[in-house]
Amino acid sequence: MASKLKIIPLGGVGEIGKNMTVIEYGKDIVVVDCGLIFPDEEMLGIDLVIPDMSYLEKNIQKLRGFLITHGHEDHIGALPFALRKFPVPVYGTKLTVALIKHKLDEHHITDAQLNQVSPGDTIRLGCFKIEFIKTCHSIAGAVALAITTPIGTVIHTGDFKVDYTPIDGEPMDINRFAHYGSKGVLALLSDSTNVERAGHTLSEQEIGKTFEHYFDSAKGRVIVASFASNIYRIQQVADVAIAHGRFICFQGRSMLNIVGTAIELGYLNIPSEKIVEMDRLRRLKDEQICVITTGSQGEQMSGLFRMANASHKLNIEKGDMVIISASAIPGNEKGVSRVINQLFERGAMVVYDRMADVHVSGHACCEELKLMLNLTKPRFFIPVHGEYRHLYMHAMLAQEMGVEQENTFVTNIGDVVELTYKQGKITGNVPAGSLMVDGLGIGDIGNVVLKDRKLLSEDGLVAVVIALQKKTGKLLAGPEIISRGFVYMRESEELIKDAREAVKPLAESFATSPHSEWAGIKNSIRSASREFFYNKTKRNPMILPVIVEVPDEH
Amino acid sequence: MASKLKIIPLGGVGEIGKNMTVIEYGKDIVVVDCGLIFPDEEMLGIDLVIPDMSYLEKNIQKLRGFLITHGHEDHIGALPFALRKFPVPVYGTKLTVALIKHKLDEHHITDAQLNQVSPGDTIRLGCFKIEFIKTCHSIAGAVALAITTPIGTVIHTGDFKVDYTPIDGEPMDINRFAHYGSKGVLALLSDSTNVERAGHTLSEQEIGKTFEHYFDSAKGRVIVASFASNIYRIQQVADVAIAHGRFICFQGRSMLNIVGTAIELGYLNIPSEKIVEMDRLRRLKDEQICVITTGSQGEQMSGLFRMANASHKLNIEKGDMVIISASAIPGNEKGVSRVINQLFERGAMVVYDRMADVHVSGHACCEELKLMLNLTKPRFFIPVHGEYRHLYMHAMLAQEMGVEQENTFVTNIGDVVELTYKQGKITGNVPAGSLMVDGLGIGDIGNVVLKDRKLLSEDGLVAVVIALQKKTGKLLAGPEIISRGFVYMRESEELIKDAREAVKPLAESFATSPHSEWAGIKNSIRSASREFFYNKTKRNPMILPVIVEVPDEH
Repeated sequence: MASKLKIIPLGGVGEIGKNMTVIEYGKDIVVVDCGLIFPDEEMLGIDLVIPDMSYLEKNIQKLRGFLITHGHEDHIGALPFALRKFPVPVYGTKLTVALIKHKLDEHHITDAQLNQVSPGDTIRLGCFKIEFIKTCHSIAGAVALAITTPIGTVIHTGDFKVDYTPIDGEPMDINRFAHYGSKGVLALLSDSTNVERAGHTLSEQEIGKTFEHYFDSAKGRVIVASFASNIYRIQQVADVAIAHGRFICFQGRSMLNIVGTAIELGYLNIPSEKIVEMDRLRRLKDEQICVITTGSQGEQMSGLFRMANASHKLNIEKGDMVIISASAIPGNEKGVSRVINQLFERGAMVVYDRMADVHVSGHACCEELKLMLNLTKPRFFIPVHGEYRHLYMHAMLAQEMGVEQENTFVTNIGDVVELTYKQGKITGNVPAGSLMVDGLGIGDIGNVVLKDRKLLSEDGLVAVVIALQKKTGKLLAGPEIISRGFVYMRESEELIKDAREAVKPLAESFATSPHSEWAGIKNSIRSASREFFYNKTKRNPMILPVIVEVPDEH
Repeated sequence: MASKLKIIPLGGVGEIGKNMTVIEYGKDIVVVDCGLIFPDEEMLGIDLVIPDMSYLEKNIQKLRGFLITHGHEDHIGALPFALRKFPVPVYGTKLTVALIKHKLDEHHITDAQLNQVSPGDTIRLGCFKIEFIKTCHSIAGAVALAITTPIGTVIHTGDFKVDYTPIDGEPMDINRFAHYGSKGVLALLSDSTNVERAGHTLSEQEIGKTFEHYFDSAKGRVIVASFASNIYRIQQVADVAIAHGRFICFQGRSMLNIVGTAIELGYLNIPSEKIVEMDRLRRLKDEQICVITTGSQGEQMSGLFRMANASHKLNIEKGDMVIISASAIPGNEKGVSRVINQLFERGAMVVYDRMADVHVSGHACCEELKLMLNLTKPRFFIPVHGEYRHLYMHAMLAQEMGVEQENTFVTNIGDVVELTYKQGKITGNVPAGSLMVDGLGIGDIGNVVLKDRKLLSEDGLVAVVIALQKKTGKLLAGPEIISRGFVYMRESEELIKDAREAVKPLAESFATSPHSEWAGIKNSIRSASREFFYNKTKRNPMILPVIVEVPDEH
């Protein structure tokens, strides 16, 4: 009996982030992408979030490799965690592999099997034949995958837009998609990010005109903030700057890293004599300077943030022009807004997305998504890379384009989509979800800890400290009240004194109660303290009763 | 010698929120608006933020009254705090006064001197003559103020848009602005919120067409979420719903409050037989139901949030159409997005601002701002109601319209703008700023407490508890380790045990050290614990050493 093809999203559906998709047939598995997502505002103190990969742990003997579509964090960020557990080969284009290597170095992983491929290359992994197809995105080196399985070809678009005039001169390889479409595509997994937007995403080249315009009018320094990984954007800024007689100074850790790599690999083409270090800027006139920096998302500690806050050697001054060549990622709106205000306050002229076309998206809008559906004419359609509403709308779009309703699958993380040549359905789900990474801990932070952090963040903590004689319950010391994040203790002496008085009778009741009631007394101390402080302040700090039992033999 | 006119913003400049402006001449002060702002994400646990009013406390004998332009929280929200200190008259239109009264009732303030005025009315307060001028905004009852002082007239627009076809049939009273403009306006203070947007804000009526369109196609229930205070929006939804044979059910506490008041006062015109309580919905068919609810900002506990989360009697089901008639206020984007996804997941058809014209702004765009400048032709211009960049751009706009550069004032909170008939300048500043309200505490939460909350929210807390003999320093009990929000203690027994061992030698060293060194030992315990936990977990919990000194006489 022929096996069924299983497609299992371990991330990237119902969310924008931590993309990871399992493709399984018989005794072979390949995994497309291995990304992270940044914690949402509820996940206090969490550093990052990665997919739960226990399904792969269970099936490690089937795992043939990771196929990486491009080098963004939401596609490569979980690789260090994955490769520690699954030392299998990784495949990606030149820049993608370089970025992965850099990330693995930071995690002290030196023995990874990184394999560089080029668009047009085909590899074989187990029963799968995989062709890498050139696409366009907001990072260089992006590819889609045509994964030919024993029962048909699965196309995974990765993140893409259809740019007919890209900066690197190589448009998406539409003909390969058409080739597979003509032969018959079993399933299409396609980027859903911009399905809410009608029309066609503008070409990256369009914003070159905006740069021309503003550089023409700039009299002082020009500072451009963008994503470090947007090599094409950086190329455009550099070209315009050099044409205007300016030298380029890069700022920000990730900018310096990625630009260095991109120049080395030939993705970025800037004459080395046009690049200057920061300490050489003093020798240049303002109108000879163009700084390209991180911080387009208003991130604290980024280059632009520190320039705007006078905590950078290169401070923004009157006469500077700052171009923020990005739009705010959801959740970053307020941070971006704050930096723009600070830049204006320092006297800069600020150009940002509400004022001018300084940014284009890297994702396909509706007409491009339709083109992809039309080129590939898939039997089955699984929208990926989107929150629920994006997946839902993309599924509707596919149905309008002729995919059968029962052949479109809006999935949740862990859903198993089983396909035969003729039929597909969601047959169940595997253990999957999110693992929160906090410091060295992976997945050890659960709801109890997060709930405590939330509570602590709102009204702080009050410790009620009591020392008892272990045997008799006699009160030896206390109650003492210590608080953090609740009230400013020096100004609240009266309140603290009253609280001590309020708790004292309970503290003394240990001595007159049998040992079996002590836990109850501890609870009473907690609730009496909570009530006392709520009545006095209408705040609800976490109450931490600390009962020290002193052994009698001392 | 003639006095100078002083204009002092105590809030609402450099921010969108807590609007409050002092107008002072000789021995008279009137205050325009008295609003609150919601805490930003750094202000952990803070309920709300109000202006520092110490300047008014110092000048209480001059204070003649509060002039309130409309009933939004950022214009009335600090009144309960102000009126407790300054029991002076308050002036506003009918709905504004009703909303203030409701707010004061909640704060148990019953003796306020609330004075209802109508657009066109003129009152006198001290040396000031104040005319209330009808404007249009996203709440009914909005007015601008023409404050005639001994040296000229100051126009304060309040929040406004120029709507020629408003729902209540009464456009902004442009002629009164023109009247003052012809006579000569000394200073204009004008709403800067939408200065980044070119053109003209759409009329509120425009979105009536969108409602028509979607109600035409709706087959099941229609649920519309909007701001409770947007009476005009609610009127439009109700009109369309009734025309489509539907009954209206209001949901959400503030919706029920404001709608009740608005109907009572005649601002909202819905036949009472068309309004149904929730428990009567069962008797209606789905196509007869229209629910109007709070929750357009994705606020937790709001009507729509609970409907989307199955924690409301009225749960969203397949076949429902949900129209979110609002756009996300900066900072709320993720919450709104989450609710939209949940609604789709529950099977609803969701209509929101990316898909259709379901919302128009209540603030003037560039062309309207120019109209206001052109009508009033002020000598001095002070942009208000905006972050720094809005104020800056609005000042530029005024200069383009002919206001002298030295006569435009981009202010900070507390700046004193002194005007004579001919000259104006910022002469200094008064104590001013933000007071954070947390529970009953007003302004008692400072940076230390906020910093502690931040720290606690990130990696929680570890208490290191030790009992010593007071005189000798002999270790009586401990060290015990208690943590909250750091690790899940039950799964970290090993870690806790090792920490105890690591700290023990230090705990024992009290006994062998003179009392004068105990503080130093306490600090060593703190740093040793911090280092231990960081090395083991790469987390940085707050360390709270708790040293209980047990008196010897027990």
